[in-house]
Amino acid sequence: MPKRKRVVFFISDRTGLTAESFGSSLLSQFPETEFESIKHTFVDNVEQAKVSVVAINKASEKNKVQSIVFSTLVEPTIQKIIESADACVINLFGAFIDPLEKSLNEKSAHTLGRSQDVIGKLGYEKRLDAIDYSLAHDDGVRPDQYDKAEIILVGVSRCGKTPTSLFLAMSHSINACNYPLTEDELDVDTLPEVLLKYREKLIGLTIQPGRLSSIREKRRPNSKYASLQYCKNEIKIAEAMFQRAGIPFFDSTNISIEELAASVMKSIGNY
Amino acid sequence: MPKRKRVVFFISDRTGLTAESFGSSLLSQFPETEFESIKHTFVDNVEQAKVSVVAINKASEKNKVQSIVFSTLVEPTIQKIIESADACVINLFGAFIDPLEKSLNEKSAHTLGRSQDVIGKLGYEKRLDAIDYSLAHDDGVRPDQYDKAEIILVGVSRCGKTPTSLFLAMSHSINACNYPLTEDELDVDTLPEVLLKYREKLIGLTIQPGRLSSIREKRRPNSKYASLQYCKNEIKIAEAMFQRAGIPFFDSTNISIEELAASVMKSIGNY
Repeated sequence: MPKRKRVVFFISDRTGLTAESFGSSLLSQFPETEFESIKHTFVDNVEQAKVSVVAINKASEKNKVQSIVFSTLVEPTIQKIIESADACVINLFGAFIDPLEKSLNEKSAHTLGRSQDVIGKLGYEKRLDAIDYSLAHDDGVRPDQYDKAEIILVGVSRCGKTPTSLFLAMSHSINACNYPLTEDELDVDTLPEVLLKYREKLIGLTIQPGRLSSIREKRRPNSKYASLQYCKNEIKIAEAMFQRAGIPFFDSTNISIEELAASVMKSIGNY
Repeated sequence: MPKRKRVVFFISDRTGLTAESFGSSLLSQFPETEFESIKHTFVDNVEQAKVSVVAINKASEKNKVQSIVFSTLVEPTIQKIIESADACVINLFGAFIDPLEKSLNEKSAHTLGRSQDVIGKLGYEKRLDAIDYSLAHDDGVRPDQYDKAEIILVGVSRCGKTPTSLFLAMSHSINACNYPLTEDELDVDTLPEVLLKYREKLIGLTIQPGRLSSIREKRRPNSKYASLQYCKNEIKIAEAMFQRAGIPFFDSTNISIEELAASVMKSIGNY
């Protein structure tokens, strides 16, 4: 049986990232329906809201079923226009402002673009510095500066270290560097001294051999480096090194970068 | 008057990113209260939920005011335990499952860890490829491969190109590279030919001179490169180049990476 289809709009007065991540989480609870997502960002005035309503109504009419609309609009006039659309409009903020006002004993500001203030300038600079640090210390560069690192990811080539470091910097403002275990180091069979000095910052990454082999194959087809046997062997040695050194390690194979980063943060005692 | 304080817990059976981004957006509407955030991730069993309740109750007791709890738990048994805490518990998913079930005419799965399925394997590889591409084409590297780029950010040194490219790759799975305008190119006063070939992919970035000067100062203190006058001049030339070439450009000074990336996406017709 073909999946049922439904068009979903994410309407935001800002980037739409909150509406999208939250709405997608909700929709993932409905596996029998297939969703087509449309995002409308920076809907912060009446005209833009009317443009959105026209698009929503057109989709509902075309598909002969009401579209779903997730909105995170805080300005009541604009939200009201969206609610006039022929759709199942879900006001993500609306439901919670009331209980929060009661609990905090404070009236909500109903103000556009506030979320930014939360991070603040200090948070913003820490984040940019973390991104700079992580980029400058990708792939084993400058281990003499690991005193400034908050997390050092270690693992074999192409096991997911770089995206994870960058995500840690970007989303958690963490100075995360990463260190690839080379063939020589795997031969020696013990983690390099430059790493063991910072044992409490070390996190191992591992991956399933089949997946690693297919990733490496794209980079160097038919190479020894990409062969399943070679990948298996490297991973086996690396995992044994992590275990002997007593450092936590995670498998990147079947999880998202977000989850891997959250697991890393949890293992160093954050969250 | 000192700000009122309140402890906020974000409780999630996964990474907590959704609970945190959504909850923080809501809280930004309450500027008179200062919030201390605590995140509990991977709360996916009864024992973990009980540990969270103990922590929540302790905070409420210590501060003599109920803590706020945002939860995105889908498993009803676990959610019920959290709701037994002495706190203002806001079940972010609960409020919306019901209207969605009605509109979609489908029972929700109430299943842990579904969100991941939404991206799917294909989306995951596209994302990793985008991160690889953006890293390999940071800072003007290999313009001969710009045919594979989806967005080319261009601007003076340290105006915010690298974090924006990486964010576009990480969060929008876009092949985003960036090209710094050098002193020579600014002297010539027209965008280099290698860029003009891909005019439809070009996005300019600019920044306020004072901010640029202070960023550069951290990197090369007391240099000509960091002086306000030099920054002013570079920015003026760069903006004139963008205007003559007819490419859109954005000021990175007072907005978050998320917003900058969303504006860029909108300007190339996505969203």
